[in-house]
This record gives sequence, structure tokens and C-alpha cells, in this order.
Amino acid sequence: MRADAVRNRAKVLAAADELVAERGPAVSTEEVAKAAGVGVGTVFRHFPTKESLLTAVHVARLERLADSARQLTRAEDPGAALFTFVTQVVDQAATKNAMTEALTNAGIDVMGVTSEAADALKQALGELLENAQRAGAVRTDIGVPELSALLVGASRAAEHAAANPRARERVLSVIRDGMRAHRSA
Amino acid sequence: MRADAVRNRAKVLAAADELVAERGPAVSTEEVAKAAGVGVGTVFRHFPTKESLLTAVHVARLERLADSARQLTRAEDPGAALFTFVTQVVDQAATKNAMTEALTNAGIDVMGVTSEAADALKQALGELLENAQRAGAVRTDIGVPELSALLVGASRAAEHAAANPRARERVLSVIRDGMRAHRSA
Repeated sequence: MRADAVRNRAKVLAAADELVAERGPAVSTEEVAKAAGVGVGTVFRHFPTKESLLTAVHVARLERLADSARQLTRAEDPGAALFTFVTQVVDQAATKNAMTEALTNAGIDVMGVTSEAADALKQALGELLENAQRAGAVRTDIGVPELSALLVGASRAAEHAAANPRARERVLSVIRDGMRAHRSA
Repeated sequence: MRADAVRNRAKVLAAADELVAERGPAVSTEEVAKAAGVGVGTVFRHFPTKESLLTAVHVARLERLADSARQLTRAEDPGAALFTFVTQVVDQAATKNAMTEALTNAGIDVMGVTSEAADALKQALGELLENAQRAGAVRTDIGVPELSALLVGASRAAEHAAANPRARERVLSVIRDGMRAHRSA
């Protein structure tokens, strides 16, 4: 790709990402083009279908999350790093679920297209968890499968309490506290 | 209703309930009739549509859950009572979600038909929670909205870990531990 084509593709992707984060997957190609400052033809050249654009946005979001997890594995306080990541996942969950649903409804094999990013995420998650456990910040009887389930549960719980930010925060603090290394049992 | 009609209705409802618990909402009227030991005509007389039968099953399940919560409010150990109820809700969540989805897809106003049972459940839940908090078993900074969100989260987390019963149990223990009255902060 020529440099300006690469730039345009990135601009379209960034604009679509921002629109999706604000309003969910139901965005039009025209809106994306306008927000990116390019013509509709440019959007179609890089993403021939609405689904290909949404898929690219979804994969990019997962890759960013994996990057963030990897960066957090180098943080000074491994316990705080894990909980920061939990918050990031929970904050993005509503958008992620809406995207997954929209793509699935459009016949996209979401697991297939995201498997690479999901693997990277899982690996970084494992490192974050181990670091936090080694630092004594998180109970040692949970592994990545438990942490993944807790991220799903925390996201759904937060969504349920979304109308009341203070209740939402208390709900998340319950789950965080449960994850901490505990006294006896 | 005559006594045998009442009995037949109850038999149909019980058979449908059991089939739904086993296999989800996609059960046929013929199967229900067979399991109840009545003719298909009897099923249709009490429940003219498949949706009316599923709605009755759904409402009956919620009422049973509310009954169970009310009984648990009189248990000796209020902390254990609350956690027993959490387990009951989580164990029934997959069926409940599938029923809600099936009914919503069939155009039923699920919130509307279940509002009475849901109110009764909410009230019993409030009592269970207060008892457990008064007994010092559960942190006092959460109310029914937080507990409801945690029940949703725990159910989704358990569903996510369903393939591994030991991981599922660890996930639930994390959430239970988080709900307990905690040491300092």
C-alpha cells in the first residue's frame, strides 16, 4: 500500500472505532467517511463491506487490549496492574458484546477472525495474573479460565448496574475484593 | 375449574417445567402431553398457545424462587441462607435466560407478565440481604441493586466456566468471598 493509502486506512479505522465506541455497531459508511475526512469511495476501497470494516475495528480493539495487558505486565505494582486491566475490560465490554453480536448476526465467524488477538490477550492475561499472584495480591487458586469467567461476570454485573455509577463501582469492588489474596480459607 | 381440570393443569405445568429445565424452551406440545400423561387436547385446553405454556412455566419458576427466598429468610444462619439462595439463582440462570429470550422473541412482554413474581422476589431478596448483614456475614455497603447485579454477574461467570465444574466453583467462591463482611477497607 502507498503511504497515503496506509494513512487513509488508519484514519477510516480510527473514525469507525470512535463512532462504534460512542454509539455501537450501527454506524453508516457515510458517517465514517465524514468523521475520517475522506470520501465514501475511500472507505469502500479499504473495506468493501460494512462487515469487513466492523471486523477490522473489532480485531483492532482486541489487539489494543492485548497491547495494554502486555504493557501492564511491566508495571511496578503487579496487583494494581491486574485490577487496572480488569477495569479496562469491563469498561469496554458493552461495546465488545454489541460488536460480537452484530458480527455474528452478519454471519461472521467472530471466534475465527479474532483468534490471533484472543490468544495474545490470553497470554498477556496469564502473565498479569501470575505476577499479581507472585506479589501476593491475588489468590493463587485461580487461573486464566477462572479470571476469564470473572471478567465476563464483572462485565455483565457492571452493565446491569450501569444506571447507577456508585452501585456499579461497589459491585466491581465486591468482585475485586473476592479476587484478592485472602486471610484463611 | 373442576378438581380434575386443576390437577391436569398442574400436571401439564410440572411436565413442561421439567422438560424446559432439561432441554431449554424448545419443547413440543406433544412431548409435554406425553410426559404429563394427558392428551394433546388437554394441553391446548389449558394453554391455547405454546407461548402461554412457556409463560406459565416461567412465572411459576420465578414464584418458586421467591418462595424459596422467603423460606430462607427464616433460616438459622442468615449468611448461609443468602449464599444458598445465590447458588439457587446461579443454578437456574441458564434456563431463565433461555426462557426470557424465547419469550421475548415470541413477542411476549416478559417484564410485564413476571412483574408480580419479580417484586415478591426482590422483597425476599432484600430481607435475606438485611438478615445476613445484621448477622455480620455480608458487607454492609451493598443493597438489593448491587446484589441483583452480582447475581447476574455470578450467573454469567458460572455459565462461562460451566465446562469445568471445579473452575466454576472457584469462580463462585471468589464472588461469595467478595460479598462477605471484610476486615478493614
